Amino acid sequence: MKSKKKAIVLLSGGLDSTTTLALAIERGFSPVGLSFTYGQRHSVEMEAAKKVADFFKVEEQIVLDLPLAQIGGNVLTDSSGEVPHNQEETAEDDIPPTYVPARNTIFLSYALAVAEVKEITDIFIGVSSVDYSGYPDCRPRFIESFEEMANQATKLGMHGNKIKIHAPLMQLDKAQTIKAGLKLGVDYSITHTCYDPDEQGRACGECDSCRLRLKGFFRLGIEDPAVYRKKP
Amino acid sequence: MKSKKKAIVLLSGGLDSTTTLALAIERGFSPVGLSFTYGQRHSVEMEAAKKVADFFKVEEQIVLDLPLAQIGGNVLTDSSGEVPHNQEETAEDDIPPTYVPARNTIFLSYALAVAEVKEITDIFIGVSSVDYSGYPDCRPRFIESFEEMANQATKLGMHGNKIKIHAPLMQLDKAQTIKAGLKLGVDYSITHTCYDPDEQGRACGECDSCRLRLKGFFRLGIEDPAVYRKKP
Repeated sequence: MKSKKKAIVLLSGGLDSTTTLALAIERGFSPVGLSFTYGQRHSVEMEAAKKVADFFKVEEQIVLDLPLAQIGGNVLTDSSGEVPHNQEETAEDDIPPTYVPARNTIFLSYALAVAEVKEITDIFIGVSSVDYSGYPDCRPRFIESFEEMANQATKLGMHGNKIKIHAPLMQLDKAQTIKAGLKLGVDYSITHTCYDPDEQGRACGECDSCRLRLKGFFRLGIEDPAVYRKKP
Repeated sequence: MKSKKKAIVLLSGGLDSTTTLALAIERGFSPVGLSFTYGQRHSVEMEAAKKVADFFKVEEQIVLDLPLAQIGGNVLTDSSGEVPHNQEETAEDDIPPTYVPARNTIFLSYALAVAEVKEITDIFIGVSSVDYSGYPDCRPRFIESFEEMANQATKLGMHGNKIKIHAPLMQLDKAQTIKAGLKLGVDYSITHTCYDPDEQGRACGECDSCRLRLKGFFRLGIEDPAVYRKKP
């Protein structure tokens, strides 16, 4: 039996990255999970990433601890800021306070280093330009320019092994993403999305991230299997 | 008095980054130093970076600890590998074992995050395509494609503030770099270049990095003021 081609999948344990992992497997790749801790206020996300990796029998999961909190500039890594609740949806040109500066650039750079060491040419990231139109690093042009740079930056690219950044959710909204995942058997009860969970890991149901998720399930007429501390 | 425009300067405390810092100051920028620890076997490099920052009265120096050793793939972060001594010079297409995968991509990504938070549009990096022809991420095409990506990745770039990656040493060999630095008053005795210093921080004089440096001083007919454990 021919062994499957490996791909690196950025895995936060959230709804998007979990769906991306399922799509990478469907496309015939054997995934290497890559997760990051970076001064999130909660470890719930990492537990979810582990559960998801176990659920999909991912053979190798790498966890790296990044000094993003030292750089600051956003409410998810700063201990001072307040996570926004019940805000109006982010307007087209408005970048929300939950945007972590250069986050996807840094994440993909580490994926590139792992790719180089393991000689893997395929990297998956679960960004969507539909849901996160305010984030510059969730747009198709960002992914394309990162891919171009990645091929200039590495031995792999230099030696003609084209590095490919896959962003299979790019044109999907949350409902479409959930639909694609359910079709592939994703158990969304183990995924974690909330920016502001409580100590038991229960989602708040009110932050931007929870609201986007809940809206997606609502539009499909399906109940979100995640545990919320206040029934939405 | 108009306050000077800030620039982020990647500062390892080596000969190249120190010269780059001097050039950034000469070009009228007020530098923010950005240094990284990443499982180097020695802290000598960080001490040199600090000395250099003090020498140039750099107002802000940021030090970030990166998990590069966990990714592996090279002799500088792996505890197992041997640093090559007295090797022949690296051939055009041969990538040396001291190449750290995606290192400059990762370094510049953090610089980009700091740039975003501090709203700084200029980043300096001391790479040279002349001396390090074997490193893909020291070539002009890499710098150009990173700059292009950086402008897609960030609020700054999205809002029309063009981010510029300066690589002033790109076309200089080591002798030319040293000459440029001496003209600007750089004290090379405080810079550190060696891949394999001893416990007192003395350079080996035999690794690729020492040899390049010594050759540069030799060609200028000047004695290298660095301390070597074996007089070269």
